[in-house]
Amino acid sequence: MPAPLQNDSFIRACLRQSTDHTPVWLMRQAGRYLPEYLATRAKAGSFMGLATNVDHATEVTLQPLARYPLDAAILFSDILTVPDAMGLGLSFAQGEGPRFASPVRDEAAVAALQVPDMAKLRYVFDAVTSIRGALNGRVPLIGFSGSPWTLACYMVEGKGSDDYRLVKSMLYSRPDLMHRMLQVNADAVAAYLNAQIEAGAQAVMIFDSWGGVLADGAFQAFSLAYTQQVLRQLKTEHEGVRIPRIVFTKGGGLWLDEMAGLDCEVLGLDWTVNLARARAQVGGTAGGPGKALQGNIDPNVLFAPPAAIEAEVEKVVRSFGQPHQGDGQGPTHIFNLGHGISQYTPPEHVAVLVDAVHAASRRIRA
Amino acid sequence: MPAPLQNDSFIRACLRQSTDHTPVWLMRQAGRYLPEYLATRAKAGSFMGLATNVDHATEVTLQPLARYPLDAAILFSDILTVPDAMGLGLSFAQGEGPRFASPVRDEAAVAALQVPDMAKLRYVFDAVTSIRGALNGRVPLIGFSGSPWTLACYMVEGKGSDDYRLVKSMLYSRPDLMHRMLQVNADAVAAYLNAQIEAGAQAVMIFDSWGGVLADGAFQAFSLAYTQQVLRQLKTEHEGVRIPRIVFTKGGGLWLDEMAGLDCEVLGLDWTVNLARARAQVGGTAGGPGKALQGNIDPNVLFAPPAAIEAEVEKVVRSFGQPHQGDGQGPTHIFNLGHGISQYTPPEHVAVLVDAVHAASRRIRA
Repeated sequence: MPAPLQNDSFIRACLRQSTDHTPVWLMRQAGRYLPEYLATRAKAGSFMGLATNVDHATEVTLQPLARYPLDAAILFSDILTVPDAMGLGLSFAQGEGPRFASPVRDEAAVAALQVPDMAKLRYVFDAVTSIRGALNGRVPLIGFSGSPWTLACYMVEGKGSDDYRLVKSMLYSRPDLMHRMLQVNADAVAAYLNAQIEAGAQAVMIFDSWGGVLADGAFQAFSLAYTQQVLRQLKTEHEGVRIPRIVFTKGGGLWLDEMAGLDCEVLGLDWTVNLARARAQVGGTAGGPGKALQGNIDPNVLFAPPAAIEAEVEKVVRSFGQPHQGDGQGPTHIFNLGHGISQYTPPEHVAVLVDAVHAASRRIRA
Repeated sequence: MPAPLQNDSFIRACLRQSTDHTPVWLMRQAGRYLPEYLATRAKAGSFMGLATNVDHATEVTLQPLARYPLDAAILFSDILTVPDAMGLGLSFAQGEGPRFASPVRDEAAVAALQVPDMAKLRYVFDAVTSIRGALNGRVPLIGFSGSPWTLACYMVEGKGSDDYRLVKSMLYSRPDLMHRMLQVNADAVAAYLNAQIEAGAQAVMIFDSWGGVLADGAFQAFSLAYTQQVLRQLKTEHEGVRIPRIVFTKGGGLWLDEMAGLDCEVLGLDWTVNLARARAQVGGTAGGPGKALQGNIDPNVLFAPPAAIEAEVEKVVRSFGQPHQGDGQGPTHIFNLGHGISQYTPPEHVAVLVDAVHAASRRIRA
């Protein structure tokens, strides 16, 4: 029997229910900016050594919570575990990003793709269960996956890219191959997230990190449609409890109206989006339907001195405005960065930001 | 006495006047995808050897026009010539991007910045005059500069960046320094573009290549405001002829309403923008004010086979819809890529694209 949640502000805000402060967590909050993370990673020997070891993954997931009063934990893992389980051979060279030994670049490679046996990803589900136990109800645990399109970018390029030439060449030259790959990815991501939910994830997030590199039209056909396919297959509750679903498309601000139609509770926003305008567009009204909004401060604000961080946090909180109060549902905000935290961030600045969110969001409710 | 323009479709479309086809040119159309460009660059020894030699710059500017029926030429140069003239020491290492020997990272370096003596940029103005003569009225010549913010990115980072950490750290920590740098840049860019106009440029374009990395609010204060300062200082005509001004903010689609207030004739758009929606937002109506729109196909479309290129061109042309016809002013479209052409582009695919634009745009007028 899992422990009851002591701090349910994140889940409530996801469900557009009132909270006494704006919940805050940070994308990549367990990461390289923390010396204790680097120490655990050194013990583990490598990034994948860290991610595949249940004890290490549990330890690093909880590290930021020991330092900061964050309102949610997020599973420590990587968005590329699913294509790795498909047999593409993921590795992380020291000082470089991820790389696949066998990128998917032709018809034969696409035809060979299959939804992987979820047993290959058991290390992830075991980590979820372990972290959930270690949290013991302190804050909820978020599970996650890359979106079908974002996975496809890495699967075709074989690594990070600055122009997405190979994956877009396939998209424009052989849309049939791209659709087949995205269909496999969507089914795999849905199975992966459902297994995380069964293992104990209390919310799930789809990172469409590269949706924003697509042209208008291509985004809808090759990213949004497959994110929606994932969402439609997801469990919406587990053991009688609602499981909120978050979708974050970096660079997706132009498509908010279309994203409002997604079968999810929360939309993540990057820092280019005006929160007040996004709230008016898709946040709904008290008693009406709408999306909770998550985001969206520029992570580079964390390089400024404390007073400037506090001022920028205040701007973001005020830009959203007073969230829903009282019973029922209405517009809500979950504070986050607009992208993952930089490895160069001074850890003490994160404390300033988290405290500033709690303080400013209580002030705006008063 | 300069030769009269034989093909004025680009200038007319900039001024929202009717044309019998949609004019087309391509950002970075004189570049590494052309073998003849690589041959000239090899002769010149380096990128800056190419850009600073009037004969070479003239030769490469005209190369794409010898292959394709493009409707405009653009000066071959680099956006970083202005900070180079400020004394920052620009170089291009083989196979890498630009780099400054003396980046601007502290108060003393910012205080030392000054609008450079335009005599140091004479090689650019001489190239403009030479190219204009060589064109002999065939198509108009576009001059250009980086925007104040985009120049500041390179000046602080010292090279390309994927997170803009240093320049944004200065922006959030010392906005006073950033404003001072941007003021110098704005005055320098205005002087630089006015000198290009005097030397013979028939239109000018401001590349705000990195405006889209800024947060909402920061974009308006640190990029848009200084682009507007440049525009306000520009000559709007030369020798009795209108000089259209184009502003292109990559990733700026969310701020089109605000960009509609810029003192310019044309807004450039990247591929994330829906052209029909942009036209409705800022394109104006027949007889009313508005901006001409330039863009916006994904350069990666050029890696697809000819039939797919033609289909994607048709989509873009139809997305804008029928441009203004008849007398007076109304909504117009200048076809372009949404970003610079890739060095890996097959040159024969560019011919397909240019012909497809002309054919599709004549069809939609019929």
